[in-house]
Order: sequence, then C-alpha cells, then structure tokens
Amino acid sequence: MEPHPFDDAVALTRQADGRYAGTVPPPYWNMVGPFGGTTAAVLLRAALAEQPAGIEPVAFTVNYCAALARGDFTIDARTVHAGRSVRHVNVEMQQGNGTVSTASAVLALRRPTWAHQPAKPPAVPPPEAVSAMPTDGAPNWLQRYDFRFVHGAWQWQAQPYDTLRSAHSTLWVADKPPRALDFLSLTALADVFFVRAFHVRGTTVPAGTVSMTVHYHASAEELAAHGDAPVLCTVDAHTFARNFGDQIAQLWSGDKLLATTTQMTWFKQ
Amino acid sequence: MEPHPFDDAVALTRQADGRYAGTVPPPYWNMVGPFGGTTAAVLLRAALAEQPAGIEPVAFTVNYCAALARGDFTIDARTVHAGRSVRHVNVEMQQGNGTVSTASAVLALRRPTWAHQPAKPPAVPPPEAVSAMPTDGAPNWLQRYDFRFVHGAWQWQAQPYDTLRSAHSTLWVADKPPRALDFLSLTALADVFFVRAFHVRGTTVPAGTVSMTVHYHASAEELAAHGDAPVLCTVDAHTFARNFGDQIAQLWSGDKLLATTTQMTWFKQ
Repeated sequence: MEPHPFDDAVALTRQADGRYAGTVPPPYWNMVGPFGGTTAAVLLRAALAEQPAGIEPVAFTVNYCAALARGDFTIDARTVHAGRSVRHVNVEMQQGNGTVSTASAVLALRRPTWAHQPAKPPAVPPPEAVSAMPTDGAPNWLQRYDFRFVHGAWQWQAQPYDTLRSAHSTLWVADKPPRALDFLSLTALADVFFVRAFHVRGTTVPAGTVSMTVHYHASAEELAAHGDAPVLCTVDAHTFARNFGDQIAQLWSGDKLLATTTQMTWFKQ
Repeated sequence: MEPHPFDDAVALTRQADGRYAGTVPPPYWNMVGPFGGTTAAVLLRAALAEQPAGIEPVAFTVNYCAALARGDFTIDARTVHAGRSVRHVNVEMQQGNGTVSTASAVLALRRPTWAHQPAKPPAVPPPEAVSAMPTDGAPNWLQRYDFRFVHGAWQWQAQPYDTLRSAHSTLWVADKPPRALDFLSLTALADVFFVRAFHVRGTTVPAGTVSMTVHYHASAEELAAHGDAPVLCTVDAHTFARNFGDQIAQLWSGDKLLATTTQMTWFKQ
C-alpha cells in the first residue's frame, strides 16, 4: 500500500542527536510554498521524536519566518527543560542557511483528573448531508482535504464587499484520502482554514500566517477512537487592523473538544 | 518620584549583545514565585530591546518551564529572522544554570490598512460603579492590581462544588498604583486572571500556567491614549482534563479590542 501523502509530508531522517532532515511535500504545495499545516506538523514531529513513551503535546506555537522553497530542510530540536511530567522542547527549521520557522512545544505525561468541558459543539448536519467543496484545479494542498462548509463557505467576489462581513465558518474537514487522526494531522488541521481576511473582504489579498498556537485537549487514545472521520470545526476572528488579523478555531469529535487554536495572520493593504 | 513597581519589575541591565540581567520583583511575589505576568513582560522587554524604532509586538508566546526563585536572572534574546516589516525574536530566561522560561515574539512595523473588528465588548457598568476586590493580606502581586469583578468573582469554598461551574469572569483591572498602559503592562495583564480551575471547582488546587500566548491588536498610540484607566476583561475556558485546562481572554479599551490571550494551565488532581 502506498503511504498516505501526509505520512510522507511528516517523514524525517535522523542525522544526529536532535537533528532531522526532511523534504517539503509537493502534494501539499500551495501558491508560493507548502501548506503551513504540514510545516507545523513536521515541527511537532521533531519535538516529539526523542521523548519518552506516553508524552503528548499540550501546547504548541509555530512562528513562520520565511517562505519555504521546494526541496530539503533540516530541523533542530532541543529539550529546554525536562520536569517530572512536563517537558519543553524548542525546534527550529532551516533551509539553506536561514531559519524558516521556529516552534515551541509543551509536552506532558498527562494523568486522569477531574474533567469539565464548559464548551459545547455547534448543532450541525452530519458530514454526509453537506456537499464537499470542489477542489479540482486548486493548489495541491486543497486537494488533500475534504472541506464541507455548513456555514461561511468562501465565495470569491471580483470586488471587496462594500460592508465587510463575518469571519465565521463552520465546516467538516477530513484528510483526503481518509487517514486516522493523530496529533500530527490534528496540528495540520488547525491551519486548514482559509485566511479570514478573504472571508470578511470577499476577495483574496496577499496574506500569510505569522504565528499559530494549538492547545491540545484530547489524548492519543481519544484521537485514535475518532479514526478517519471528518472533524467538525468552527472558525472566527476578533479583529483586523494594520496588516494583521487574528483567527480562532475549535476542532471537535462529537461532543469532545479535541483542540483549540489561535493565529495571527499578516495581510497586505 | 519613586518609580512604579512595574517599571522596577521589567528593568533590565544590558550585559552584552542580546544578553540582559534583571531581578525577580518582590512587589509581584506570589506564593512560590513571582506573578507570571511580570515574567512575560520582562521577556517581551528583552525581545523589543534592540529592535528598530516603530517595531511593535504582534504575537508573543511564553512558556513557563520552572519556578523562578528570588534573586537575579539573565535573559538571552536572539533575532531569528528579520524581514522588511516582520521580525522574529526568541528569548530565554536563565536562573542558576537552568532555563526557567522561554518566549517567542513576532514583531512588526505595522502600517495603516483597512480595518474590521467583528468582536464587541460586553455591556458593563463603569469601573467606578463596581466595588474593588479587597487584597489586604493577599500575596504581594494581588496588591499590585485593582480588580473589579462585574461577573464571576471567585468565591472560596471549603469543598469543591458538587456540580462544576462556569469558568467565565468579566472584570475591570488596573495597575495599582495607576500606570499608563503600554505593551509591557498589557502583557502582564493578560496573565492577571485567576486560575480558571479555581473558578469551576470553587477551591484552590496546585496549579500554574505552562504556556501563554498574547495577540496584540492595538498600536502604541492607542495604548497611550488609553492612559491609566482600568482595562475591561472577559475570561473563560473551554475545557479541563487530565492535568490541564485552557483559558481565553479579551482585553478592551472602550470599543477597541487591545489584545486577546490564550493559556494552558497545569493543575494537580
């Protein structure tokens, strides 16, 4: 069986202690670089690579410094602090002689405690009742996901809206072809939402994520139990001003909140 | 005039290129270490220290690795990438021979663009119509802030609630004594909210923030225009499970969203 393109995208070769080599994945190519979600996922993979069994991600921040070119990259991972149950790992991706992205991961051996989830998922039709967005002819990375918009599908306009609109979307998203959910694919899914500036303006503008933070609320077992079904996502933004807008999103499996994520995204006038 | 205790808290002495020394601030001492907000603020100060004029913070993530002890610390700041308008700076705080915290800052020279703020502040009474929380006898850092809870004031219970409650609070917060708002004090304010696990349980538990991300939506001029008035804040959480809970908050000046922040906080069973 052919490996799933996502597994190729996060493949790393160990070169030395804490140093890994990988290749920018053509199947996830966007317009001027790869989909940022696969970059985030491969950085998290490097952060997790040499950690003890049972260690899971709690918080992960990736900062995108420069566009990645086609070809190879290296990642350096450094365990900054190792406590009894919580570990901090900083990673940095280089291409040529420059740093193209950095990330920090808080990892932990999480144990059973009391639990409480005040947040509730939105009421939505099941994915099979929602039509999939056509992606034929779209950049490669869009063809790697099945997008089913319940609300807030993006409609391209020739001119920006006269009155700027809501940044909200609710959608089902799945890997295409289907792939069992894990922390790496969940991290990529956190970056899968279209730039909110496009939604509020109705047109595309030069834009790119500069920083993404993912907070993980599910265990490896809970992700495995989710399997390869679509993930329900809500996305929104608080504000846009002076070249930057934010993005907030929730990723759900049934009634269970899997992850929350926030971004700051640059846009040009 | 005596310097404001916050200015003492974020004071740094330059020791070499990108290396600074500071002292843990006794006026912001908490139970087993200083208030995390001042640690975040002094890390941001180091990140901004040698940047060009006009550079402002866009996104900032601080990871708390270990408890800070009383005494001195050093901070190393490294500009990872310097683009035309966006810069990435990573900082690391050491005490003794160990790393106690790390942070990454995305900084930018922000220019006028179209603007859009879908988020709206809650309708609340003015701060002078809300009573201030007594802080006499409380840990030092609590005495450095004026807290006026509109909703969700924390009420200590001898036993945890039978049914876990809302994590939401709405409150006015100001530096005490008053101090004109800037990016550093705004960053500290982002960590000023009591641990949400205390609110949902009704009792305290051993707990501490492991990671905080702040997204900045206001300019230096807008912060200066705010002056030393209280900042309106809303705080909430999505979920608590397996030793970690999250926290989300918004910080407002009138109708203008100044910053949004998210955390992951560790708690013991």
